[in-house]
Amino acid sequence: MFQPYQSSMLALGKAPSVIRETFEYGNRRAKEIGRENVFDFSLGNPSVPAPESVHETMRRLMDETDSVLLHGYTSAIGAEPTRQAIADDINRRFSAGISAADLYMTCGAAASLTVTLNAILCPGDVCMAFAPFFPEYRVFTEATGAKLTVVPADTENFQLNLAAFAELVTPETKAVIINTPNNPTGVVFTEENLRKLCDILREKEQAFGHPIYLIADEPYRELIYDADTVVPYLTNLYDDTFVCYSFSKSISLPGERIGYIVVSPKMADNRNVYAAVCGAGRALGFVCAPSMMQRVVAENLGKTGDLSIYRRNRDLLYNALTEYGYRCIYPDGAFYLWVQALEDDANAFCQKARDYELLLVPSDSFGCKGYIRIAYCVTTEMIERSLPAFKKLAEAYGK
Amino acid sequence: MFQPYQSSMLALGKAPSVIRETFEYGNRRAKEIGRENVFDFSLGNPSVPAPESVHETMRRLMDETDSVLLHGYTSAIGAEPTRQAIADDINRRFSAGISAADLYMTCGAAASLTVTLNAILCPGDVCMAFAPFFPEYRVFTEATGAKLTVVPADTENFQLNLAAFAELVTPETKAVIINTPNNPTGVVFTEENLRKLCDILREKEQAFGHPIYLIADEPYRELIYDADTVVPYLTNLYDDTFVCYSFSKSISLPGERIGYIVVSPKMADNRNVYAAVCGAGRALGFVCAPSMMQRVVAENLGKTGDLSIYRRNRDLLYNALTEYGYRCIYPDGAFYLWVQALEDDANAFCQKARDYELLLVPSDSFGCKGYIRIAYCVTTEMIERSLPAFKKLAEAYGK
Repeated sequence: MFQPYQSSMLALGKAPSVIRETFEYGNRRAKEIGRENVFDFSLGNPSVPAPESVHETMRRLMDETDSVLLHGYTSAIGAEPTRQAIADDINRRFSAGISAADLYMTCGAAASLTVTLNAILCPGDVCMAFAPFFPEYRVFTEATGAKLTVVPADTENFQLNLAAFAELVTPETKAVIINTPNNPTGVVFTEENLRKLCDILREKEQAFGHPIYLIADEPYRELIYDADTVVPYLTNLYDDTFVCYSFSKSISLPGERIGYIVVSPKMADNRNVYAAVCGAGRALGFVCAPSMMQRVVAENLGKTGDLSIYRRNRDLLYNALTEYGYRCIYPDGAFYLWVQALEDDANAFCQKARDYELLLVPSDSFGCKGYIRIAYCVTTEMIERSLPAFKKLAEAYGK
Repeated sequence: MFQPYQSSMLALGKAPSVIRETFEYGNRRAKEIGRENVFDFSLGNPSVPAPESVHETMRRLMDETDSVLLHGYTSAIGAEPTRQAIADDINRRFSAGISAADLYMTCGAAASLTVTLNAILCPGDVCMAFAPFFPEYRVFTEATGAKLTVVPADTENFQLNLAAFAELVTPETKAVIINTPNNPTGVVFTEENLRKLCDILREKEQAFGHPIYLIADEPYRELIYDADTVVPYLTNLYDDTFVCYSFSKSISLPGERIGYIVVSPKMADNRNVYAAVCGAGRALGFVCAPSMMQRVVAENLGKTGDLSIYRRNRDLLYNALTEYGYRCIYPDGAFYLWVQALEDDANAFCQKARDYELLLVPSDSFGCKGYIRIAYCVTTEMIERSLPAFKKLAEAYGK
């Protein structure tokens, strides 16, 4: 039968994202009772401005660089000086042995993932993700014709549930996505946990006789708050690794769409896999990553927005909510707090929270029921004003 | 059998683009004999700087706008003020009755096409293009699982070959891409030619009982050089129209990846088709168009780079090459000159041209043999220096 449009795309376009729905409810509610009376914790949009050096770099580039070069096409894989600067920075920090030729510049984290997934996944393949996970992993995976298998959460510590993973991995498994620091939990996976995952992956590669790619989705890599928190660099732990990075959160440029993919040089058949990445970027219509931003990020490596604001927000919320009787998972990084709902149904709990003008995201769409995500990339002052509401909500549940 | 990557993506990543290969030969040759001795006409990269107002706008936005807002995510469909400004501009110029809700902001022309094609094409569907055509139409179409049917060229005038089109269109045809002003010919299709195409499309829609979408790929819309050249606005001629636009050429920002899709409000089932566009953008990983550039283009509508440079280049090349005995198709727009090769095999002709350091693109990959494309988005001074080489090349063929 003739379809006037791709029905799966229609479904995606119409699918109500609970995050977006919550955000829009907040906007309507703000019109009714005033923005200052609504406590919107729904969106992961950085609230800390870009470091000042970002605008300084932009002004200087406009002053000093020929407009035709500054705004012209770069090579599809990204400008060589940018790729070299990023490789140098990665090697300096992680001794990873990356070269510029292993890097592919992208239009942000989502593009890093779709280009990688389209490069490797064929219909019938399986990609795995660990619950709770960023819901778009399913969208991006299924758009390639492959299937997403979800590993149930480790609801004790929200580390990777490796026992469940080892049972669920099959010969059809071609890729595994991990995300550390994690959205939605804020947890950083321990090196021990990651090393065990890599051991299992190597064992299964041997058993199945083919590569299983590890895709490290790392938009939150730089957002860690404690001196002893370490985020291991995955190409150092496992050869068949892609690192999907974005500058959205680290230097607060989420709308500018700039990131990259590392195709590990240790990967078997690295040059063909890299070529498939180039092919996927081309087929999806990316052409090149935004040209001026390629220069901007190269000159701002190692910079971040003012992370002390996120740290203060985290401490404030974590300590207060724990005191009020909530079970909070301690977040080492990112800007999310993961909290057990005070009733089994997180959706009902979030509805109830709206009575106190608290806009929280229920966990179901992250593949894990009974929790809520609080995005604390908001003003500290809003958090302070919201605390009595969280307290009353807890009291309403007898805490 | 297990494939370590998507083989079609590998093939695309490795496929030698003749345009890119020619460009890279030019770079190697420039190292051997000096850049000033190589006449590289291979790439369609604007040579005219962005209008000064673009950098003025950027500086003002950085001064006046909160960094978090300026560089933050916009709505996936694009910021409302930008979409409203573009709709107003289209309506002022073309009385098209577009609203902001019909616009979807994209990361440039390629993204406009891939998002549109993924929104509507299903495996088994056919998309049609008129030779000669931009080779990526095939890549973008086939990546959706649909098939591209090519309508042979009208080698007399390089208008749309409607007799051939009417014979080739089938009930499987879901979309037709046209590109005016045209890459690679520089031809602007006449209103008469376009009206006849639309008549045939309406007739076939009736006969087949389903929509056939017209996709107007319009990155070159503003690049016209003669007072009497008119580029009709397609939504005014045909209801089931998408307009895929980019600011890459008009304001010389090709690397910044900013454009849009118009889903005609007159289209049957406009709201569902628009939702499918949103779904496709999401599935391909676009998230939103670059945020600061969304503001920049909204404030620079109606501006262009200095088109008088392209006009001078066109006149210089067209007049000289015609005088030397080449058959040139008169280009009303874009920045390409389409010239009949002086032997049947355009590839052999382009090889021969390299003896005179002329780097030209043979026409085969555009779906039309025996011609060459000259991209005249170069300095006027290079064209002047290249003319003796074109003359000698013609003489070598006995002209």
